[in-house]
Amino acid sequence: MTDLLLDAGGELAGFYAAEPELVAEFSERYPNARLVGSAAEILESADIDLVASAAIPDERASLGIAVMRHGKDYLADKPGFTTLEQLADARAVQRETRRIYSICYSERFQNRATVRAGELVQSGAIGRPLQTVGLGPHRLNAPSRPAWFFERSRYGGILNDIGSHQADQFLFFTGSTSAEVVASQVANFAHPEYPGLEDFGDMVLRGDGGTSYVRVDWFTPDGLGTWGDGRLTILGTEGYIELRKYIDIAGRPGGDHLF
Amino acid sequence: MTDLLLDAGGELAGFYAAEPELVAEFSERYPNARLVGSAAEILESADIDLVASAAIPDERASLGIAVMRHGKDYLADKPGFTTLEQLADARAVQRETRRIYSICYSERFQNRATVRAGELVQSGAIGRPLQTVGLGPHRLNAPSRPAWFFERSRYGGILNDIGSHQADQFLFFTGSTSAEVVASQVANFAHPEYPGLEDFGDMVLRGDGGTSYVRVDWFTPDGLGTWGDGRLTILGTEGYIELRKYIDIAGRPGGDHLF
Repeated sequence: MTDLLLDAGGELAGFYAAEPELVAEFSERYPNARLVGSAAEILESADIDLVASAAIPDERASLGIAVMRHGKDYLADKPGFTTLEQLADARAVQRETRRIYSICYSERFQNRATVRAGELVQSGAIGRPLQTVGLGPHRLNAPSRPAWFFERSRYGGILNDIGSHQADQFLFFTGSTSAEVVASQVANFAHPEYPGLEDFGDMVLRGDGGTSYVRVDWFTPDGLGTWGDGRLTILGTEGYIELRKYIDIAGRPGGDHLF
Repeated sequence: MTDLLLDAGGELAGFYAAEPELVAEFSERYPNARLVGSAAEILESADIDLVASAAIPDERASLGIAVMRHGKDYLADKPGFTTLEQLADARAVQRETRRIYSICYSERFQNRATVRAGELVQSGAIGRPLQTVGLGPHRLNAPSRPAWFFERSRYGGILNDIGSHQADQFLFFTGSTSAEVVASQVANFAHPEYPGLEDFGDMVLRGDGGTSYVRVDWFTPDGLGTWGDGRLTILGTEGYIELRKYIDIAGRPGGDHLF
């Protein structure tokens, strides 16, 4: 998110993290970034227009609400919320303050193939979009994960956590402005040692512009050369597009593949 | 089906079709095949052990029941039935006569990649299979279709007609012996001139060995080099397999691709 904002002409005014290891990591990546003494210092600074945060998911909404109440805009990493109550609260404060609560969906904004697919669909290349199928496998890499990663109340469930990327793309590619979850299921199929983990989830979505199927999971095998073979297929009346976002198995090297 | 049976050592005793154009087509392909005077002649022949039929879908069950009642086994093209009543009747006659009512699912039996995937999954190559995603787009080619193709009561709906292939593969690859349809939907999105056509259908399946998502449609674009970019992804605890059954878009030539 920091890179996106810097590329867009933003200026990094300062940063804060309660965890020393996160401070060290951020400082190493952005050596000129100024560490401030508290989150409040950022909220209260008159020189700051926008606050970006990748806090633990269940803390994002309360931070965003505080940001808007301090007259600033907010950019949260996905997922933007973990409960519907948080969403309702943020909407109320958004209406009241007229500030922006936005969410960074990297799988749409930071993948060149996905950006290009958006242009193609908008230009009518596949006719009227009817449906998307999004497959989002991820590597679990359990030992490297913090404790909150395995607490459902903190990450909000697999469909909220990594499925929110897919919901976002479905809305965007079908031009839907409202949608419902027709059916969904989650499971912990193979990780009884982590009872709070959902290692599989899927859902059928139906919007005013089309339908979608989404599957997300934590089953990327160790042998794959990347963290996940993310796929998106967009079906239209006149054609279809397939994205192999991060790897083209047994195909061309690198990511960003559009077919 | 005829080729499969001949390859398996069968002998073509005779054939029948009410439609002259179908007779001509079959005779051209099997010049030595003997046309008989009626379907009854086949049913009543003491020399015939098995009857194979690709009758219009809603006629398959009654023929199969007659075949079993004449002491013969039956092989129907897919779909094997168009109503649950037909299925119940055929099951009852099967139990009574002890004959076989089988269905030829070409997408599993006649695709080398799919056969090989079955061997790999059985051998444990991807661990325990958890889920399949089957995408079965087909080219509509409406002008070439007979009238019954557009009559729902005759083809049984898109999920029955072409989705039955996918249901079969889900059962096979997850080792499921029973399953339910958790959610399904069908639509005619873009062919108002054929009100009886369902051009899109999808369903979520859950069995005792795993789950599945199935999407079938009649939206293969004219520019694609084959009738459909059929895909099957099998997700397991230790890996996954993707089949590009009939074409590998922007990849290797031909069909039968296993990744």
